[in-house]
Amino acid sequence: MTKNITAQTLSRLPMYHNYLTSLPDEKKNGNISATAIAEALGLNDVQVRKDLASVSRGGRPKVGYAASELLRDISRFLGFDNHDKVIVAGMGNLGKAMLEFNGFANYGFDVLCGFDCDKELVGREVNGKPVYDIGKMTEYCRKNSIKIGMITVPEASAQTVCSEMAKAGIEYILNFSAVHLTAPKGVTVHNENISLILAMLARCSFGE
Amino acid sequence: MTKNITAQTLSRLPMYHNYLTSLPDEKKNGNISATAIAEALGLNDVQVRKDLASVSRGGRPKVGYAASELLRDISRFLGFDNHDKVIVAGMGNLGKAMLEFNGFANYGFDVLCGFDCDKELVGREVNGKPVYDIGKMTEYCRKNSIKIGMITVPEASAQTVCSEMAKAGIEYILNFSAVHLTAPKGVTVHNENISLILAMLARCSFGE
Repeated sequence: MTKNITAQTLSRLPMYHNYLTSLPDEKKNGNISATAIAEALGLNDVQVRKDLASVSRGGRPKVGYAASELLRDISRFLGFDNHDKVIVAGMGNLGKAMLEFNGFANYGFDVLCGFDCDKELVGREVNGKPVYDIGKMTEYCRKNSIKIGMITVPEASAQTVCSEMAKAGIEYILNFSAVHLTAPKGVTVHNENISLILAMLARCSFGE
Repeated sequence: MTKNITAQTLSRLPMYHNYLTSLPDEKKNGNISATAIAEALGLNDVQVRKDLASVSRGGRPKVGYAASELLRDISRFLGFDNHDKVIVAGMGNLGKAMLEFNGFANYGFDVLCGFDCDKELVGREVNGKPVYDIGKMTEYCRKNSIKIGMITVPEASAQTVCSEMAKAGIEYILNFSAVHLTAPKGVTVHNENISLILAMLARCSFGE
């Protein structure tokens, strides 16, 4: 699924979603304008108009959007109705945090299980989700058609895990290890460097 | 410290730093061109030239940079020589992961300690770093002139912790809780939404 919108637009969509969801029923069944949404959320209305136009074709001049239709379009765009299955490799504190974090479900992600090589951890559960032997990751991913993986293993094994994920049919990898990973064509890796985010925030006037 | 470079340039600087550090001594004492660095790292040389010019004024046409001087400028720019003190509020798995992660030191950050309200955790150590009572955070920050804080507490208490950090003199806040935080003027908050990063990666052709 390829969509071209900016990260800024994307980051505002959950706000619109929350606002529309919170409307009383009579308003949900009526029309709503970009201007009204902008006012309610304290945003610039030109920006809101652009954002909404990029995800919904239901806007009409002087009428606005049917609120329920707009809500449906935003949900669909964000994949909130999806059940995209996700696995996590590496059950250190960061990996456990990923299994514990229930916020993923709001975005349509189903974090199913974790993998680790530590025999002490294999067979346990974190937040009701099983931890399996990392040697079984490939088989599990193929059997369950997993397309999304997170890497929270130590640096030294991150590239190996990445390559295994790619072989197992995973198409999107979110990498938290501090090493820059490369994957074969057809696999998208995002290297999330938390140190760099902190450096940008504290030293390069990055932030919100 | 305000610097205006793009996130893309910033993300490449550690690569240049690693490359220059890895050079043998005789090369480190000589000159090096942007073209040579670009070739070694498989990057576009126009891009590398721009990146280097944005952090160092030492480049000379047809000569390049004195390698040692360029290395010093990049280190200084990235703050790798700094010892910026950081604290972490919230000692769940994510907070513990932040205390455990030694990668911050490479970027000049000194993650000193964690804070939590759980009496079971207070007084313990994570990765040799103490966990203190969150009630003592303000005092600790003031006494130690802490300017950077990470928030890894549950959503319900995130805004309270954020406001307390601001009052305690913290100027930069990296927020991992799934709630959008606001801080007073003079305090920069970056809300790091991991679900959103995953959504962008898997559904909006974001990645590297």
